[in-house]
Formats: sequence, structure tokens, C-alpha cells
Amino acid sequence: MPTQAEMKAVMQKYIDSFNNRNADTLVSLFADNARIEDPVGSQPIEGKEAITSFYQKGITLVNKLELAAPIRGSHSNSAAMAFIINMDMDGKEVQIHCIDVMTFNDSGKVVDMKAYWGPEDIKGV
Amino acid sequence: MPTQAEMKAVMQKYIDSFNNRNADTLVSLFADNARIEDPVGSQPIEGKEAITSFYQKGITLVNKLELAAPIRGSHSNSAAMAFIINMDMDGKEVQIHCIDVMTFNDSGKVVDMKAYWGPEDIKGV
Repeated sequence: MPTQAEMKAVMQKYIDSFNNRNADTLVSLFADNARIEDPVGSQPIEGKEAITSFYQKGITLVNKLELAAPIRGSHSNSAAMAFIINMDMDGKEVQIHCIDVMTFNDSGKVVDMKAYWGPEDIKGV
Repeated sequence: MPTQAEMKAVMQKYIDSFNNRNADTLVSLFADNARIEDPVGSQPIEGKEAITSFYQKGITLVNKLELAAPIRGSHSNSAAMAFIINMDMDGKEVQIHCIDVMTFNDSGKVVDMKAYWGPEDIKGV
């Protein structure tokens, strides 16, 4: 099981990779069989190929991710963070207020990511 | 399925009930068969009786809960919030930096609560 510090470092790298527009690093944080549900309630994305497409597109839309509070760990192999996604939507910059929960495998790769944000958490529209 | 506003209102009531020391209101937010894992990785607490004991004790230890960022919804029956628990621990006031994820039934009651905080998210010890 990864340590608290290892999980938090991966989540910080997730933020930084978006801000540095580094899709390769972003995708490298995920296990080959990872599953992403973003937002929770939408059709999950599964496997490295689908995840790569998802982030290659995502990185072109996102201007900046900002942590809203320090990243939280757990007493297990999951961690969570509240952050704000600044992104372009229909030619306007909007802010999506989001919480991601990530679960890790023993190699410290993300196997499951759930992004909690609802239609009303998009601000500036 | 409850609306985004209904889920967020329940989570705000969770915060307020702690701050008002109202265990009855706090417990009333949960379904009879609810399951709590606080923190994630610990033994879950299940059912109204166990949940009542958990919060009756919790309310005597907690001085104040403070939201760290606005409550997030989802595109489903879950919502999440980042907050800080100010509580007494061994005679000192500590701050636990936490994210709760709650899942709701059709009546708007919480059926599942997961609290993400690790040993290193307790500050002031």
C-alpha cells in the first residue's frame, strides 16, 4: 500500500501536470486497468487507451487547476482533494468546483478516480 | 433521487448540527440501514443504533466543524465536502482536515458516508 505522502504526491502531480500541459505525465499516474468516473453519475472510462484520450482532450480545455484545500489521505489506499478547474466552455472561462477521490494500487498507481461535481458546481456560465 | 440542493442542504445540516450540538438532528439525516466509514480504512459502523452512539459521543468531542470550500454535488445521488474538524484530543485542540463523501437514498437520507482523513491530516498535535 502506498504511504500517505506517496498518494498525496501523485495527486499534486495530477494538478501540476494539468498546469504544465503534460499529458504523458498525467496518464502515467494511472494503472493500465484504471477506471475514471468524471463526473460521478456519468459513464465510466476504463483502461489506458480511453484514459489517454480523455486527458489529451482535457488538457486542451483546462486553463488551470487550483487546490481549494490541502489534499486529504485516509487510513487505507485512498485519498481525496477539493479543487477548482478553470476551463473554457463555449468560449467563456468557467470554474468547476470539484472533489476527486482516488484509490491506489500497491505500485502507487491510481486504479479508480471519482470526480464529484454537479451541474450547479459550474460557476461563471 | 434527491436534487443537488437537497443533498447539499443535508450536508450543511450535518455541519450545523455538530456546531449546535444537536445529536438528534444529526442522526435523523441518516437512513436506518446507513453505513459510515470514518476514517476510510477503519471498521465501518452500520445501522441507526451504532450511528446514534457514534454521533452522541462525537458531539461531545467536537468543538466546531468548518467548511473548507463549497459543498460539491455530482450527476448522481452523491455529494462531497471538504471541511475542518476542530476537536479535543488528549486535552489539546487539534484540527482534522477531512473530506466526506455521502450517498443518498430516494428519500434524501444518507445511506453511506465515507470520511477521508489520514493520520497526517490531524494538525496541532
